[in-house]
Amino acid sequence: MHTAPIITLLTDFGTSDAYVGIMKGVALGICPAARLIDLTHEVPPQAIQLGALLLRSAVEFFPNGTVHLAIVDPGVGTARAPVLVVTERALLVGPDNGLLAPAAALLGVRAVYRLTREEYFRRPVSDTFHGRDVFAPVAAHLAAGTGPESFGPLLPSLHALELSEPRVESDAVHGEVVYVDRYGNLISNIPAAALTTFNHRSLSVRIAGMTLSPIASTYAAVVPGAPVALIGSWRTLEVGVRDGNAASHLGAGIGAAVSVEATRTKGK
Amino acid sequence: MHTAPIITLLTDFGTSDAYVGIMKGVALGICPAARLIDLTHEVPPQAIQLGALLLRSAVEFFPNGTVHLAIVDPGVGTARAPVLVVTERALLVGPDNGLLAPAAALLGVRAVYRLTREEYFRRPVSDTFHGRDVFAPVAAHLAAGTGPESFGPLLPSLHALELSEPRVESDAVHGEVVYVDRYGNLISNIPAAALTTFNHRSLSVRIAGMTLSPIASTYAAVVPGAPVALIGSWRTLEVGVRDGNAASHLGAGIGAAVSVEATRTKGK
Amino acid sequence: MHTAPIITLLTDFGTSDAYVGIMKGVALGICPAARLIDLTHEVPPQAIQLGALLLRSAVEFFPNGTVHLAIVDPGVGTARAPVLVVTERALLVGPDNGLLAPAAALLGVRAVYRLTREEYFRRPVSDTFHGRDVFAPVAAHLAAGTGPESFGPLLPSLHALELSEPRVESDAVHGEVVYVDRYGNLISNIPAAALTTFNHRSLSVRIAGMTLSPIASTYAAVVPGAPVALIGSWRTLEVGVRDGNAASHLGAGIGAAVSVEATRTKGK
Repeated sequence: MHTAPIITLLTDFGTSDAYVGIMKGVALGICPAARLIDLTHEVPPQAIQLGALLLRSAVEFFPNGTVHLAIVDPGVGTARAPVLVVTERALLVGPDNGLLAPAAALLGVRAVYRLTREEYFRRPVSDTFHGRDVFAPVAAHLAAGTGPESFGPLLPSLHALELSEPRVESDAVHGEVVYVDRYGNLISNIPAAALTTFNHRSLSVRIAGMTLSPIASTYAAVVPGAPVALIGSWRTLEVGVRDGNAASHLGAGIGAAVSVEATRTKGK
Repeated sequence: MHTAPIITLLTDFGTSDAYVGIMKGVALGICPAARLIDLTHEVPPQAIQLGALLLRSAVEFFPNGTVHLAIVDPGVGTARAPVLVVTERALLVGPDNGLLAPAAALLGVRAVYRLTREEYFRRPVSDTFHGRDVFAPVAAHLAAGTGPESFGPLLPSLHALELSEPRVESDAVHGEVVYVDRYGNLISNIPAAALTTFNHRSLSVRIAGMTLSPIASTYAAVVPGAPVALIGSWRTLEVGVRDGNAASHLGAGIGAAVSVEATRTKGK
Repeated sequence: MHTAPIITLLTDFGTSDAYVGIMKGVALGICPAARLIDLTHEVPPQAIQLGALLLRSAVEFFPNGTVHLAIVDPGVGTARAPVLVVTERALLVGPDNGLLAPAAALLGVRAVYRLTREEYFRRPVSDTFHGRDVFAPVAAHLAAGTGPESFGPLLPSLHALELSEPRVESDAVHGEVVYVDRYGNLISNIPAAALTTFNHRSLSVRIAGMTLSPIASTYAAVVPGAPVALIGSWRTLEVGVRDGNAASHLGAGIGAAVSVEATRTKGK
């Protein structure tokens, strides 16, 4: 490999403890050349679904061959399997509790391996910190060139994650807010693609008792302080407030209903 | 280039989302050798002036040739230009909304280019995340050695930032607090240099109804819990509390008036 | 050296200011190849003891030869010495105020040097930011291969840190909570080793008016929402709540008493 291998890290460990640093120390001991890139460590504790959405939002922007290490693992020390997923473009390492599934599906799953070969672990393996003892070592061995098939037996599939899906009708799509980002933007589960069937009709967005129309292309389409619906960088419908915080402005958060309604444009 | 190019990152993106990680993935796809160093991502959302002060506070401590990527960009998707600034010692990349101006002035501006050459962008360019689609790719191409003139036409100058300046009188300087750091230290806009004209006179500092004198050289010049005025690491007058938090102790924050008053030392 | 030298950073600087980035810029100017790994920058301001515990919790997981830069330094600018510690496996750099002592003891102290040779500092040395002007430069020169004896004279020993130690009785160990992590886990000062003398007796843990028994090996040994005592990744007794926050659940924090009591197992 001519360029340094990349390992990304996404966890719910926070950054006030030294747990993330410890994982990096273990990884560098195995693969000194690895580039370690934090996605985020502020997934709320044990929030598998939010972690899965954040991971999926990021993986496609990394070079082919990147190893993505993701740990939100309330079941550490139980029967949930530690796994490694080979996809078309990247490798994913983490607990098989749904966390990896949306990113893996986006990238195209080729094979799933259960991590059983202890010679690739840090030993003794604790029951409370598999990030340090199992996942970081395996990610580092992968980054150093060990083949995925070395780590354990094939599994038939990944544990799926139950994600809410939007309901599509002939002239409306009904979804919900699945993520609120740092700016208070309300990210919905309605993908841009779901709106293409309404191509030649005007669209309005209903959320928190408000109707926003049309769907804009930038926050700056409205005056400062006003709410706006647009297709954001997640490539789903999102609702923001220009120069403001939509979550507090609209009193809405994760789980809030969002609908897009279409009416045939008059005269066309 | 013998040593790896450095790209610093300063944004208001926070670290709870994956936006910063996504920018790094894009940058490493273009310039795998780049060293990516976070300045901070906790600029308050859309606080251009605070971001500009933080950027200026840091740039001089990086090696020559560093690329500084800075994004606090409430106008993303509007007419504000994306720019690249060549200075005597470093390259700056970001929106032309004032964010880059103080750092550029400190480093000595040689040329400003508007970023228009889309072949250096990630395409399609979104209207909401130029960090990912414009700024990170351009910073990475610069780090990889592409010449600054490749990215677009020269601009006559950068958009300036209206920064409050201290008012200098014959025996006093009147300024204000422009930043409060993590320790609660109150950083003023009164540069150390403004006090040199008072060289042989005793100085006292007025802030929040208190008078502090003399200007000390270290927090430890006073007893624990006491306020102290000194020239801090920003090289401006700052007010701290030894082993404490001056912002809460004095009930002062950004915008609070700070004055330095001189009296001719008796007997000299 | 074939692999890039590693410098870890642990401070109470936070990440909202640019202070950490500034130190990294200074370090890379001296040692461009250094790998810079954050342990944490969220040690509470001036909390030497917490910083010392976090540093000790992390150092053993890094490769031999790592340079650990640690700064929690309320006495900056006073007589406390800046030091460098050579241990069996790593180098430690920071203020001699107790911060380095537990990690140094864990790694095995070989020599302590006082940092006096100003040619290795960034000059002029400020009285308020030795991280930038003294510690980061020295850490970078060490990473670049300068011998430890170059930086100043030997000191007879490090300043010790007064850490609370558990009291061991014939059938009990009495300790206290010394750290609360991001998950609310209550980390005690009772090392796993202190419990081995009770090997064949059943153990119960008393904390905050509750009795927990037996000592489990994983959080998943109890039902969600229930408290559990186990030997955690710090290798000390800790108390957590499965899928919850023990600190808030038990109303306990740093300083809370924790006891382990043994009774000879009946019938054995």
